[in-house]
Amino acid sequence: MTSPSTSDSTETLQAAVASDDRGKIKQLLSSINPTDAVHAVYRLSDLDQSRLLQALSRTEAAQLVGDLPEAQAAQMIERLPAKDAAGIVAALPSNEQADMIARLSNFEASQILEAMSRDEAQGAIRLMAYAPDTAGGLMVTEYVAYDENATVSDVLDDLRGNAERYRRYDVQYAYVLAEGGKLHGVLRLRDLVLSAPDEPINRLMIGNPLSVLDTGPLAELQRFFDRHSLFGAPVVDRNGTLVGVVRGRDVEEAAEERSNRSFLKFMGIVGGEELRTMPLRSRSARRLSWLTVNILLNVVAASVIAMHQDTLAAVISLAVFLPIISDMSGCSGNQAVAVSMRELTLGLVRPSEIWRVLGKEAAIGVVNGIVLGLLLGVLGWLWQGNIMLGVVVAAALAINTFIAVCVGGSIPLLLDRLGQDPALAAGPILTTITDMSGFMLVLTLASQVLPYLKT
Amino acid sequence: MTSPSTSDSTETLQAAVASDDRGKIKQLLSSINPTDAVHAVYRLSDLDQSRLLQALSRTEAAQLVGDLPEAQAAQMIERLPAKDAAGIVAALPSNEQADMIARLSNFEASQILEAMSRDEAQGAIRLMAYAPDTAGGLMVTEYVAYDENATVSDVLDDLRGNAERYRRYDVQYAYVLAEGGKLHGVLRLRDLVLSAPDEPINRLMIGNPLSVLDTGPLAELQRFFDRHSLFGAPVVDRNGTLVGVVRGRDVEEAAEERSNRSFLKFMGIVGGEELRTMPLRSRSARRLSWLTVNILLNVVAASVIAMHQDTLAAVISLAVFLPIISDMSGCSGNQAVAVSMRELTLGLVRPSEIWRVLGKEAAIGVVNGIVLGLLLGVLGWLWQGNIMLGVVVAAALAINTFIAVCVGGSIPLLLDRLGQDPALAAGPILTTITDMSGFMLVLTLASQVLPYLKT
Repeated sequence: MTSPSTSDSTETLQAAVASDDRGKIKQLLSSINPTDAVHAVYRLSDLDQSRLLQALSRTEAAQLVGDLPEAQAAQMIERLPAKDAAGIVAALPSNEQADMIARLSNFEASQILEAMSRDEAQGAIRLMAYAPDTAGGLMVTEYVAYDENATVSDVLDDLRGNAERYRRYDVQYAYVLAEGGKLHGVLRLRDLVLSAPDEPINRLMIGNPLSVLDTGPLAELQRFFDRHSLFGAPVVDRNGTLVGVVRGRDVEEAAEERSNRSFLKFMGIVGGEELRTMPLRSRSARRLSWLTVNILLNVVAASVIAMHQDTLAAVISLAVFLPIISDMSGCSGNQAVAVSMRELTLGLVRPSEIWRVLGKEAAIGVVNGIVLGLLLGVLGWLWQGNIMLGVVVAAALAINTFIAVCVGGSIPLLLDRLGQDPALAAGPILTTITDMSGFMLVLTLASQVLPYLKT
Repeated sequence: MTSPSTSDSTETLQAAVASDDRGKIKQLLSSINPTDAVHAVYRLSDLDQSRLLQALSRTEAAQLVGDLPEAQAAQMIERLPAKDAAGIVAALPSNEQADMIARLSNFEASQILEAMSRDEAQGAIRLMAYAPDTAGGLMVTEYVAYDENATVSDVLDDLRGNAERYRRYDVQYAYVLAEGGKLHGVLRLRDLVLSAPDEPINRLMIGNPLSVLDTGPLAELQRFFDRHSLFGAPVVDRNGTLVGVVRGRDVEEAAEERSNRSFLKFMGIVGGEELRTMPLRSRSARRLSWLTVNILLNVVAASVIAMHQDTLAAVISLAVFLPIISDMSGCSGNQAVAVSMRELTLGLVRPSEIWRVLGKEAAIGVVNGIVLGLLLGVLGWLWQGNIMLGVVVAAALAINTFIAVCVGGSIPLLLDRLGQDPALAAGPILTTITDMSGFMLVLTLASQVLPYLKT
């Protein structure tokens, strides 16, 4: 594998695109490793990216688009004329088609759907109706299926006659359907070639095949493929009708994307992945949408300080501890949030088990609260030589750590129960609550012992 | 699929384990859906979990262990007598074996390796030598390979003779080896059955097969399987010798685990996943290890406030804004961290491209800094009726937002360059820097215009 340094391949690709040299582009993209190719494409200007896709055939362009991160691919597709875009989208595997269209603006999406053939468009719309991260949302509709009354030669004729179309499919099995399209059996292709041409396929098939329900959620699909070492599984609706095939790899890929989305949301990147090639305006606006909610929550929390300004004015050194207690409680709470979110994803905890979680977190809250409180208390005491100051900050941090882990551990479960996304809301809610309680604790405890704090 | 409510299945499983009724346990575990089964096992006491594994056959226990989250599975294995544990570990697929042993304490691991057969132990040790998240670290060694001089009947005899052993393998292909074990070709099993028994397999095989290098990193493997719709791929070392087979599903699963680890580390869960069934002592200690580093960094940052106590004493209302500026800068910086970490993972940015990232973030920093600064400034002005207070907090937040996004965007690249894990260190470094600069900005700006701030 030749692998020229990246800046080289970026420049070479740029030159090839500028000269519209399709042969050179193809040769280049296949000679560098895919990771470098993705990087080189990412570094092209918007215009060059469009020219690149237009220089390639639809199938080649679809393959390149499939290599790119989805957000990047969607950006590139969106900038193409609808007809070019439709051709590339139609050449994607059916599950990626639906995902791609869902990412585009309504206007772009409808233009592309119009430019697609009627069958293609209907197929994509049908798939878009399924919830994401379910078997229906992840499945492909590129599979081969035959009526149970077909014979071996019927099947072989069809396979040979449509060899070109089926090449795009991952045909490992053919599915055998009973009346009304109900999944009846699975046919291994190798059994087919060993049989007499007039043999009916329902005598060769494996009956009662394993299948998954189209509404089956991601966690169930992951466990299905953990148990059964299969490339893919047939997907049926609740009537038992075959509607698609879901591949084990796509299931795990969806799980990875879910984890990434979760991480990005928690870090305040909302409304989908941000790439630095996106226009400043939309990047800035999306980040601000989350930041402005946060700043208002921060102002609410800080109003607690404003209400206790007299105490603060009397003992100005308390001001040093307010940000520490705010930040440390946020850290402790976030740890509990992370453990709860992870246990929810793994199915180890149910949203209803809040009391069990609270019990487990409360114990940690007591231990960690005491340790962290003592640490900060001793530092406060030594710094000002006032033991009462140490006692106040120690008590405040200890109690607030306890509050933070209890709130942090239970918020994801509560949000999940309310049908809200824990990744998006848990952080801001947590820090607002713990900021308020933390500031309140420091300042009201201090006001109780004010004479001992004034030096 | 019958699916009794979870508390039911937990209790039923408990009862079956208590009565040591293997038949009932097996029947129960296979009748409820795997997600409920995992939840029910998780809810058992430590003792019952051990009894459960011991009641099952090694293969059954290995299958159950494979369904569980790795951290949970490792806990259960660790509590078993070494001999029982070794039996179960040996029955796991080779890639899971190595992962499992790596999770155990050295003492436990060596005991289990000793209790395994010599071949099994050597195989596991060989796999453990590969870096995790490389083809070598993810591959299985359960594959079938034959010398290129073998004939069809040699292969068929071997397959039939070892049918029992190969049942555990996902045999889709047999690999054909040249001298020295070099990968020479791939043999489709279906071609085998259609050929004359004395035909040499090197005439049937597909030559120059696709393969991946044992040191190939995760991102490259993901792109490989994106391009080639394969169940698995042969893994070769740099001499071209076949060393294993990596499955597409395992590659995506590893990518998912990497995302999760990253998220957990960023949230302060270090040293591996935490489950609430783990002992309080270790849960608390692991969380504290991260929190104590953080509290010291917080104290360092807050010392900036201590150095400016005079300014603060003169304008006590500034104390309200310190936690707001600290928190908001952290939020803005974390957004930039998230985008950089994501672009690094996707291979869209190289650690050396720090200047490009800084340019992109600086633009956002200017826009978002002005918006957020104005927002907070107006609130400050209205609250105290002092426009200069508004100007001070507006300027401080604006400048600090700029600093935060620049630092946040570049830290992950710098850490990556230094071979450090961005997920672990980026957060604490970011907030320490932005806290210090934020406090400094508010308090020094205020000291410059002190006469206008005193009311």
